[in-house]
Amino acid sequence: MTVIVINTGTELLLGDVLNSHLAFIAREILPLGLRIERQLAVPDGLAIRAALAESSEQADIIFLTGGLGPTTDDITREITAEFLGLELEHDAAVMAAIASRAARRGFRLTDRTVRQAEVPRGATVLPNENGSAPGLYLAAKAAPVKKSPHLFLLPGPPRELQPMFRSSVLPILREIVPPESATDRRTFRIAGMGESLVEEAIGERLLEIGGIELGYCARPGEVDLRIIGERSALDRAEAIISAGLGASVFSSDGGSLEEVVVKLLTDRKQTLAVAESCTGGFLAHRITNVPGASAVFLAGYVTYANEAKERMLGVDPRLISAHGAVSESVAQAMAEGAHQQANATFALATTGIAGPGGGTEEKPVGTVFVALATDGAATQVRGFRFPDDRPTFKELTTQAALEMLRRSLLG
Amino acid sequence: MTVIVINTGTELLLGDVLNSHLAFIAREILPLGLRIERQLAVPDGLAIRAALAESSEQADIIFLTGGLGPTTDDITREITAEFLGLELEHDAAVMAAIASRAARRGFRLTDRTVRQAEVPRGATVLPNENGSAPGLYLAAKAAPVKKSPHLFLLPGPPRELQPMFRSSVLPILREIVPPESATDRRTFRIAGMGESLVEEAIGERLLEIGGIELGYCARPGEVDLRIIGERSALDRAEAIISAGLGASVFSSDGGSLEEVVVKLLTDRKQTLAVAESCTGGFLAHRITNVPGASAVFLAGYVTYANEAKERMLGVDPRLISAHGAVSESVAQAMAEGAHQQANATFALATTGIAGPGGGTEEKPVGTVFVALATDGAATQVRGFRFPDDRPTFKELTTQAALEMLRRSLLG
Repeated sequence: MTVIVINTGTELLLGDVLNSHLAFIAREILPLGLRIERQLAVPDGLAIRAALAESSEQADIIFLTGGLGPTTDDITREITAEFLGLELEHDAAVMAAIASRAARRGFRLTDRTVRQAEVPRGATVLPNENGSAPGLYLAAKAAPVKKSPHLFLLPGPPRELQPMFRSSVLPILREIVPPESATDRRTFRIAGMGESLVEEAIGERLLEIGGIELGYCARPGEVDLRIIGERSALDRAEAIISAGLGASVFSSDGGSLEEVVVKLLTDRKQTLAVAESCTGGFLAHRITNVPGASAVFLAGYVTYANEAKERMLGVDPRLISAHGAVSESVAQAMAEGAHQQANATFALATTGIAGPGGGTEEKPVGTVFVALATDGAATQVRGFRFPDDRPTFKELTTQAALEMLRRSLLG
Repeated sequence: MTVIVINTGTELLLGDVLNSHLAFIAREILPLGLRIERQLAVPDGLAIRAALAESSEQADIIFLTGGLGPTTDDITREITAEFLGLELEHDAAVMAAIASRAARRGFRLTDRTVRQAEVPRGATVLPNENGSAPGLYLAAKAAPVKKSPHLFLLPGPPRELQPMFRSSVLPILREIVPPESATDRRTFRIAGMGESLVEEAIGERLLEIGGIELGYCARPGEVDLRIIGERSALDRAEAIISAGLGASVFSSDGGSLEEVVVKLLTDRKQTLAVAESCTGGFLAHRITNVPGASAVFLAGYVTYANEAKERMLGVDPRLISAHGAVSESVAQAMAEGAHQQANATFALATTGIAGPGGGTEEKPVGTVFVALATDGAATQVRGFRFPDDRPTFKELTTQAALEMLRRSLLG
């Protein structure tokens, strides 16, 4: 079945928000054997009608997101009803849900809120647990036009769309989609190797398998290798990847580096603390994004100021004046200080120059040191140069720190 | 001029990565008076040809991203050359840049890398500062087909595309785009009010101005109001917004809440420390994402374990056993501890239950307390309930904390 996603919203085309719906829907429908063949973003307004018309010719299933809210630029419901030749009717149950939600939150109902209770005749209402605008499902051919695919109208805010998709859309899809094929997907995430080296190491042997689809994706500090095919072909591919890349593959189930590290620590009942200067809390943030991190993560010391390094981690001020805050020895002292203060099995530390200011000839913007202290072993320190924008610098530095810990946990 | 963006990459349609190019390009071209009318994402392969063909009929300018890299799924260059009827030629200057980059980084050249030096005849090469594949520009009508718009082929990785866009694409656009109209854009960011209340407060009076385009966008903990129009109309709109929403508007230049807070602190030469439990470093991360944050941000205490709260912030263990770690009194003690330890003007603290585990009947998942301690004033504590997924919970909690500090800084 051909699936098309239409994302509406002038805010998308003006760059106010990122489109997270495409990735979310893609991941949710793959286990049903469905893939998105095409995605379109159009502004609020009549372009929605044109996108619906052209996509209806090509698609079996359309997901249309955005424009269901209360404000004047929200007109997806009206345009779709008009396109399909369906009348809008006031739905008492939807209205009751909107009113009860507003009462629960202490919001007053406005005229605009009430518009969200209009439903095209024959549509199935998809309840919204996290907002007032419900989603709508129109079954294929339910409308009096020539070809009409299955059409799902979904709210724009991700926190409304995502639970609605899982609780209401997936059950409908399971009814309308033929039983899935044996096709499966695996994603191998690889640290410490560039994209061409990964392909050179294993690409040709993978292509010899046949019947699989390969994709390489370079991300900050990692390469993701995606393989889609039948299970037996995937098993053969996995054997080639393990033999060719070894420990550079940090996950084969799509798990992130922080998930892998938290799992390794949990399995070994070991603990972690972090001392961050240039990454400013991002390393702790990545680790605490993993549900269950509290079992292994004890404390983070975001020591931005030199005085904080001294006071919170016991870094000797003479070290800082002799070598500078961005130095191998200060990274080491920070890791050792956090290790001792938090009484953790491992402590990671970062210190560097994120930029745009603060670089010198000797230590240009992008210079960074990462250290790992642990029980009964010498502290490891490594230097890197990541002369990138601030977010990429933080990504690459935390990736290097987590990879240093992972390698150490592997023994 | 009509602008279309075509994003290629099976990884986009499989949900492996978010499409950040659309938002980036949209923001870069608006000051030239250009807007994206339509965006399309298609998989690697022949769908690229179809997308090019249909978009060439509609567009004056096409930005085509992705598929220029070294691996076998990178075929944008070949498909475009074939579609336009242009031969690919080996470009010695591009090859020299690729070889020198590889040498500088200690990478070996592979056969695949060399493919990136193929250039369609007549194309302008756009140098890549952060990767090996150059971008390509084909001027309108340069190709021997019926209608061919201006076509930019750009690399997939954002850290390669973005600097290339600024250094090579914008100068070309300034040549080919007619002088910009007086149209301008302003974005007002509003905290502490829902979308319908914002529109109710000011929507009708804004519509009376005429000649402006309004957009509302609800995000975690804020509403963004975008206005596009002529400068004089925007000034009138801004007056209505200021009068109607007052201090709820935290920025009118698109600046984020953390940017506003860092600027207010910098202007007042005041300092900040944070003590985080449930937000796990995300509050420090948001603040340190702002360039120049080091002038005001002293330290972050990510006290995930109870023992860390006691040891790092001096929280009395009896408070924790009497009220629980997620309580008004522990939030207060954390803020006061950080305030004192870091010797900062202000200290923010967060403690809550992010979930999915850890909720109780009395304190369900989503319960959170935020506290603000400052010199010579009583510590403020507020309770919230954000029963959301983990990333949204962290967003909403840090938003509430930053807003509490901003209000306090406003006096």
